[in-house]
Amino acid sequence: MKANVFHGKNKIRVEEIEKPRAGAGEAVIRVTLTTICGTDLHIVRGEYPVAPGLIIGHEPVGVIEELGEGISGYNVGDRVLVGAITPCGQCRACLSGHSAQCGHGEGYEALGGWRFGNTINGAQAEFLKVPNAQANLAKIPDELSDEQVVLLADIASTGFSGAESARIKIGDSVVVFAQGPIGLCATAGAKLMGAALIIGIDGDENRLAMSKRMGADVTLDYRDVDVMAEVKRLTGGGADVAIEALGTQQTFESALRCLRPAGTLSSLGVYSGKLEIPYEAFAAGLGDHRIVTTLCPGGKERMRRLMEVVRYGRVDLTPLLTHTFPLDRIGEAYDLFGERLDGVMKVAIRP
Amino acid sequence: MKANVFHGKNKIRVEEIEKPRAGAGEAVIRVTLTTICGTDLHIVRGEYPVAPGLIIGHEPVGVIEELGEGISGYNVGDRVLVGAITPCGQCRACLSGHSAQCGHGEGYEALGGWRFGNTINGAQAEFLKVPNAQANLAKIPDELSDEQVVLLADIASTGFSGAESARIKIGDSVVVFAQGPIGLCATAGAKLMGAALIIGIDGDENRLAMSKRMGADVTLDYRDVDVMAEVKRLTGGGADVAIEALGTQQTFESALRCLRPAGTLSSLGVYSGKLEIPYEAFAAGLGDHRIVTTLCPGGKERMRRLMEVVRYGRVDLTPLLTHTFPLDRIGEAYDLFGERLDGVMKVAIRP
Amino acid sequence: MKANVFHGKNKIRVEEIEKPRAGAGEAVIRVTLTTICGTDLHIVRGEYPVAPGLIIGHEPVGVIEELGEGISGYNVGDRVLVGAITPCGQCRACLSGHSAQCGHGEGYEALGGWRFGNTINGAQAEFLKVPNAQANLAKIPDELSDEQVVLLADIASTGFSGAESARIKIGDSVVVFAQGPIGLCATAGAKLMGAALIIGIDGDENRLAMSKRMGADVTLDYRDVDVMAEVKRLTGGGADVAIEALGTQQTFESALRCLRPAGTLSSLGVYSGKLEIPYEAFAAGLGDHRIVTTLCPGGKERMRRLMEVVRYGRVDLTPLLTHTFPLDRIGEAYDLFGERLDGVMKVAIRP
Amino acid sequence: MKANVFHGKNKIRVEEIEKPRAGAGEAVIRVTLTTICGTDLHIVRGEYPVAPGLIIGHEPVGVIEELGEGISGYNVGDRVLVGAITPCGQCRACLSGHSAQCGHGEGYEALGGWRFGNTINGAQAEFLKVPNAQANLAKIPDELSDEQVVLLADIASTGFSGAESARIKIGDSVVVFAQGPIGLCATAGAKLMGAALIIGIDGDENRLAMSKRMGADVTLDYRDVDVMAEVKRLTGGGADVAIEALGTQQTFESALRCLRPAGTLSSLGVYSGKLEIPYEAFAAGLGDHRIVTTLCPGGKERMRRLMEVVRYGRVDLTPLLTHTFPLDRIGEAYDLFGERLDGVMKVAIRP
Repeated sequence: MKANVFHGKNKIRVEEIEKPRAGAGEAVIRVTLTTICGTDLHIVRGEYPVAPGLIIGHEPVGVIEELGEGISGYNVGDRVLVGAITPCGQCRACLSGHSAQCGHGEGYEALGGWRFGNTINGAQAEFLKVPNAQANLAKIPDELSDEQVVLLADIASTGFSGAESARIKIGDSVVVFAQGPIGLCATAGAKLMGAALIIGIDGDENRLAMSKRMGADVTLDYRDVDVMAEVKRLTGGGADVAIEALGTQQTFESALRCLRPAGTLSSLGVYSGKLEIPYEAFAAGLGDHRIVTTLCPGGKERMRRLMEVVRYGRVDLTPLLTHTFPLDRIGEAYDLFGERLDGVMKVAIRP
Repeated sequence: MKANVFHGKNKIRVEEIEKPRAGAGEAVIRVTLTTICGTDLHIVRGEYPVAPGLIIGHEPVGVIEELGEGISGYNVGDRVLVGAITPCGQCRACLSGHSAQCGHGEGYEALGGWRFGNTINGAQAEFLKVPNAQANLAKIPDELSDEQVVLLADIASTGFSGAESARIKIGDSVVVFAQGPIGLCATAGAKLMGAALIIGIDGDENRLAMSKRMGADVTLDYRDVDVMAEVKRLTGGGADVAIEALGTQQTFESALRCLRPAGTLSSLGVYSGKLEIPYEAFAAGLGDHRIVTTLCPGGKERMRRLMEVVRYGRVDLTPLLTHTFPLDRIGEAYDLFGERLDGVMKVAIRP
Repeated sequence: MKANVFHGKNKIRVEEIEKPRAGAGEAVIRVTLTTICGTDLHIVRGEYPVAPGLIIGHEPVGVIEELGEGISGYNVGDRVLVGAITPCGQCRACLSGHSAQCGHGEGYEALGGWRFGNTINGAQAEFLKVPNAQANLAKIPDELSDEQVVLLADIASTGFSGAESARIKIGDSVVVFAQGPIGLCATAGAKLMGAALIIGIDGDENRLAMSKRMGADVTLDYRDVDVMAEVKRLTGGGADVAIEALGTQQTFESALRCLRPAGTLSSLGVYSGKLEIPYEAFAAGLGDHRIVTTLCPGGKERMRRLMEVVRYGRVDLTPLLTHTFPLDRIGEAYDLFGERLDGVMKVAIRP
Repeated sequence: MKANVFHGKNKIRVEEIEKPRAGAGEAVIRVTLTTICGTDLHIVRGEYPVAPGLIIGHEPVGVIEELGEGISGYNVGDRVLVGAITPCGQCRACLSGHSAQCGHGEGYEALGGWRFGNTINGAQAEFLKVPNAQANLAKIPDELSDEQVVLLADIASTGFSGAESARIKIGDSVVVFAQGPIGLCATAGAKLMGAALIIGIDGDENRLAMSKRMGADVTLDYRDVDVMAEVKRLTGGGADVAIEALGTQQTFESALRCLRPAGTLSSLGVYSGKLEIPYEAFAAGLGDHRIVTTLCPGGKERMRRLMEVVRYGRVDLTPLLTHTFPLDRIGEAYDLFGERLDGVMKVAIRP
């Protein structure tokens, strides 16, 4: 089969490799649609280490090709969505409700639930082996297209979880820092949960326009506006919730500064280097603040629920899928996505 | 001032009585808009006992006329919304987060937070005295009209709380039994919280049409359909949440029967006589079911939040305000509302 | 191997049957200690239907004898505790956090997590086959004896969950109806969670004495005292939480009547026939009451946590193990337990 | 009356000042017992700014001397405990359940609920004026002495809240950094909530001994042991919860490093200067970690609940009250407490 293989910093190549086989508890799917994630860019740029020779990618939609021993309730030919995170369901982390930190049968492993394109072969390929298949194959309702569901595997599950982990309540004011794909989904998630005023922050007009489309009532361009002052004015003293969706000290710090006392900072960004908490914004530790972080929730039930949300029209993510490439030309897709050309939001890859 | 006074079963009369004065901690507002609630009908029909001589009504919008000693942050002339429930904020129930069961400075009193038109004079009058005014006067943003906010005082706060108490999550399936004003707001509340499939049940075409407008994806007329079978089919085995908004054995029981194991029945109805739990639907007590009940949350912060929800366009309740009458003709309004004539949903009263 | 087999109403017999073998994802353990549960009595008396030919019992401690394909992290010879409920970890119910209603890979099945001695062979035998072994084998720390952990499999997990589902908070007042094994564990659970005043109710002096030992501050004999009046007096108006641990209309109703407004009734009993909610105790549905039910939580992580509780001396359940019998004489044990002779609380069976 | 007045850095003096009078909504109590808090030391040392002329202290037990207008349910002569934090119950923060950040009728104010000895006269005096008295006077049960309840006003409420905000569950492993008065109460709080293994960390033998008395199963002296390695060993990979009770970068960072993935850091310390989050311990923001902060919960219901906990013997804080001084000699008490002489834990002051 053809697959996009990582061979070291800035070296990826579509090549022919052996098609995987399903062992006990596993399944193989024929990938019909996948995407490129910001994390894949980090891998290709050598900023996140994975083993050379690995197939990358972690957002698969496909058709069941083979079912290993011990999998029930599925048939070859079923259309399925598989989350970016594939929990085992049977380890201490999973049984405690923290399946993104899945320990594969044992305890907890930080980021352990993220396996595709990280520790095992990923989705930018014609076929994909799915571990713990019983817990991870989510059948796609007939009325939903591949394009409608592919972004649920990662960015929507992550973005929505930023709103969920913050425990947004009806009537909350929410500010979302950065309106890339994850931030846009966090914006949509805040709206889904009943936030009243939603403020989207970015410095890119294209993304601010998309932010309104995904649910923001007000957008602020940080290049033009004193964001903190404006958020405090609009919210009457500080937001109930601030969601960080970029992963920098500046957005983290600004998010904290925008909160009212007892507010919640929900962090989705991937940080590098140390992070500082400005203690006065933190009320010296006495402000009843909460800082929560979340890794993309996975598993078939999460995927099923998110598909229901799309099925009943609560959210439409297809505007984010701005470009489509065949697997053969995935190199071009990486260039376009990496350099943010042509107003790209997300790129679909069709094997 | 003029006021609608209860004088015993089926005897209400608009008459001239003395205008109230604000004592310490109190305020008097000039009522600019109010409504008639189903509970008022029960009172007039003698089904819920209140003292003869009482002014009834509990959904007031108005302008501050007088502020008693000890109230700060308000001015005479401020437009305010006051919730149907007026918690003191300082008793055991309030300080425990159960302000609808407010004990007025002491412990808990069942329904103790409901005072207007129940234990003290109510809102169907030109002026209204508000107890614990510091906790109960919610300033109305300039851009919102009286009509946009008056239904927040009771039915929206109650209906939304049916969804909130059920702790609806993104992607839940929800069925709402009865699509009267409270049920319609529960439907809207379920949508606000991110439910995917929402099913509205009623036996009145007008209400089923309004149900779709308020957020239902599917409506079922119980006269035509086997509701339980259809809910199980649509939800793939049972709803995550069933909201009861009528107050009968039949709707309560049907709500329970529609749930999946570990589902939640959120009850908003007012029951009379004993209620039966069909034990097999309850899995003999081993189904991890929850049954929750909620009385309308009140207080100025609740009202502020709900006004934010309206202000940012998350919900529009004005379609429910189908008729308006002046206070003088409130008798006609009771007749129309009581007999459900002319497609009436809610009646506004303008003093 | 020897096993206690059910052959129809009032017919159980220890007989020789074939030793089980572990298939993929399964394990076989050599049972070293087990017990008889109240549910087993119901089965033997024909009150709860199971298939003739089934080995009954669901509280196993043992040593791993055989590991099927796909199980990792265990060795033959490991001492393990297995919960009465054996969730798969991979179905919709499990992935939603409701593993007691496990659907075995698919959706939800009421009581589906309870398989031992219900739908598959149980623990009153020399050997036991454990399904979904990866999720259900909990290694026993060396310093804990079989006797110290065997009651965690069912009654402690169930009893504690009565306190947990009620979300008991530091300082709550809690009343527990019925002080049999489950109720005693609910009493201990209430204490573990920081309840202040705990009131144990029963009509048996022996059990009331044990109730104090397990954490009750006050015990009431319902034969001598007006329980409701006394609970209201002791709690200053009603308990925050009432736990029902018997499964009768009377205890259910009394539990509800003992609550303050906004209180929680946590039900652990197994009911037969319909259950009635006295509407006035329920404040006609407007009292912000909650009724929650819970089936025994299982899985290896639950068992691990409960063993930690015992290991660090938070609770000692061995006083409840009043009698021990060899498997051969299990018939006598059933008689003793069924007729509550000799102050029996729980009977241990040693194969 | 006599009172301990702050006159600038290192200048406190017991002097005669005018006895306060109760206005509307207020009460005056005759103080019968109070204490010195670590925060008072910061004030006296000029590290936390308050206005010269202010009476300091915020942990009062006393007898009602005068009741202002509008207070009901109390009598002159009632013995009462008043929390360090005196919420109004009627502002946005209070009505949202965040009463420590009370805005006094309006929105949110960081630390706004802390008024005694901060923005209004405090408790180190013969008489104390209590604002929002209806919400803040907690009657003391006859069977409890002043000594048994005085530490509930601040340190126990704060320490327990460290456990509560972390949402400790039955069976959790908990590590508490620093075993001063707050940390010791956090240790007690963890035990109250059902933690299994509790590890207390400090570098003072006296405090480590007290840590065991308050509930720690294991104590570690950071001078002798690699705390992180030892915590990971004892907990099998990391603690479920780490409580920080000192307020330094080192303890904050160590607490974070001791957590398992998806663990919770509950911070009680008062920080100065910026705080750094070591990103690798934070799994680059992808570890599902939570960081929560809490200011001492106040109000009469909180005090009532904590007194119930003491009344039923769940915790005994009197061992922490190691010394007692009359108000006249409070200067000596500050010296002893400030320099940690004579094994002092907490000092009681008797006016």
